[in-house]
Amino acid sequence: MLTKTGRTVFFKKPPAILGFASVVGKKEANGPLKEYFDVICMDALLGQKSFEKAEAQLQNTAVARALTKAGITADKIDYIMGGDLLNQCISSSYGLRDFGIPFIGLYGACSTMSESLGLASLICASGAAENCAAISSSHFCSAERQFRFPLNYGGQRTPTAQWTVTGAGSVIVSREGKKGLPRIKAVTFGKIEDLGITDINNMGAAMAPAAASTLAAFLEDSGTRPEDYDLILTGDLGVLGSDLMERLLMDNDINIRANHNDCGKMIYDIDRQDTHCGGSGCGCCASVLCSKILRDVSAGKLKNVLLMATGALMSTVSVQQGESIPSVAHLVHITSGEE
Amino acid sequence: MLTKTGRTVFFKKPPAILGFASVVGKKEANGPLKEYFDVICMDALLGQKSFEKAEAQLQNTAVARALTKAGITADKIDYIMGGDLLNQCISSSYGLRDFGIPFIGLYGACSTMSESLGLASLICASGAAENCAAISSSHFCSAERQFRFPLNYGGQRTPTAQWTVTGAGSVIVSREGKKGLPRIKAVTFGKIEDLGITDINNMGAAMAPAAASTLAAFLEDSGTRPEDYDLILTGDLGVLGSDLMERLLMDNDINIRANHNDCGKMIYDIDRQDTHCGGSGCGCCASVLCSKILRDVSAGKLKNVLLMATGALMSTVSVQQGESIPSVAHLVHITSGEE
Repeated sequence: MLTKTGRTVFFKKPPAILGFASVVGKKEANGPLKEYFDVICMDALLGQKSFEKAEAQLQNTAVARALTKAGITADKIDYIMGGDLLNQCISSSYGLRDFGIPFIGLYGACSTMSESLGLASLICASGAAENCAAISSSHFCSAERQFRFPLNYGGQRTPTAQWTVTGAGSVIVSREGKKGLPRIKAVTFGKIEDLGITDINNMGAAMAPAAASTLAAFLEDSGTRPEDYDLILTGDLGVLGSDLMERLLMDNDINIRANHNDCGKMIYDIDRQDTHCGGSGCGCCASVLCSKILRDVSAGKLKNVLLMATGALMSTVSVQQGESIPSVAHLVHITSGEE
Repeated sequence: MLTKTGRTVFFKKPPAILGFASVVGKKEANGPLKEYFDVICMDALLGQKSFEKAEAQLQNTAVARALTKAGITADKIDYIMGGDLLNQCISSSYGLRDFGIPFIGLYGACSTMSESLGLASLICASGAAENCAAISSSHFCSAERQFRFPLNYGGQRTPTAQWTVTGAGSVIVSREGKKGLPRIKAVTFGKIEDLGITDINNMGAAMAPAAASTLAAFLEDSGTRPEDYDLILTGDLGVLGSDLMERLLMDNDINIRANHNDCGKMIYDIDRQDTHCGGSGCGCCASVLCSKILRDVSAGKLKNVLLMATGALMSTVSVQQGESIPSVAHLVHITSGEE
């Protein structure tokens, strides 16, 4: 059902993507991907009493919509796996508690979307599940007050800072699935990398080494080159982190400049929307993947995509204690049904 | 390689437990299980500059010792999966970053030990890994200041409160493994259960329904009865939660009183050590499993054990916002090599 080469698991019978959905906030809907999102929430509170409850609602809505689009009910989902950035991952536990689906809670910071999608695929391919759901989210307002400043404080942002995306994305993965559906062909789980970056306002730089390391491992394991893929998509390295990752790979004679993009660069019109280095947060990769990317894959416009969400595994406490920022990146190889 | 009945995955060729190790603090070493722990740290800081760094060190030491006892090196481990209670799971990311092992970060609160062990077993059984490591930890001092009060404040504890264990436990799981080693025969991942408990000082009560639900599902899926097991071991329900779980099951005509025990009741001499309802924290189940329990299983004194760690999936923020406490319990069926 699967084989392992180096660090990469290849699926002999690749699991299918039955459905997917994205839910975003107002700022994301004002960006270049507006037409691709499933649900747009103009109210940052989503009718809830707190931003944390609003983020839980983002997850709930994304999963519910993904199930509908997949034409499947919650009781047919063997496992749901996901997580978020909030302390103790409360967006997931509160957002998902009403579905009654066995829950595998993850923490991968902003790498959670590819971690959950990779794990969902692996578990489907193993035969332990017919269907799994993967989910992740972030919310600008809950993240700001947890990681940075209270919103009302109006703190200035450094030029290297990124803007936490208000959004969630969910993917329904199935062991079977009709011909023509997008498929997950391989997954590479990343190692923790730490090059000593300590600037919490420069997460892209902290995460770039993890992305470079995981991609290099995958290319070696698969015996492929960057030009074999239509798109190599990182999660939220942003402008600066993307450039750093490309340079790190160039040092190893891997040139991805021609077909690399980053969800953090795609989700906002960076200059017009004043988001400095671009989008970030678990919801950045989740909402871009579950909107334009998977729509383009489903339509056959993209045939061969490497998705690689990256996570900065620090906390405010670890940074205050002078620690550097470890990071991790997990890679998922997605193909259109045509291939 | 595996079959699924209801919510339970049964392994046709059960993965082996190659090695395991526990690391605990002074209070735990003064309890009834003293002789079973591998490493005892008399200094709550473990020579580090903060309790958070000390907890990361607990994880590092537990994994290193488990690898040594298993007679295997880190480069032979395909994946390490684990998590902890601290915000953004920093004990795991900092404690594990030096091993260079692909990392699957989990958040299951105090259910993390059985979540990681179950997932490690599933991934080994699937063929995606030869060897996996599972790890979890907690530290009284880092947990108190994050979840409750600064230690110096000297706040009084309610009678229903539990005492967060300073400890870590790690298990090395292998697809193969010599005859005679303990085996993981099945795993049941739990659903999120929430009966509306809002008292953060009564976590046992919040988690009892999840444990009852997962155990009932496993017994049905496996067609077995409580008396078929030498020990049904919950993670950290404590005195009150254990009693509640037993009652909830009795309502469904499942009587586990004769062979149920709880790591939170076992790790301290509750009256002498003034720990009220007993031990708690991810490290409670981890350190009890990786000391007395797995030693007894290895020696054939225990032949058939159901391990079920339970997690309360709340945060201080969710509780302050008036939310109830959702919980989850994952079950792992462990047998001695003799069976």
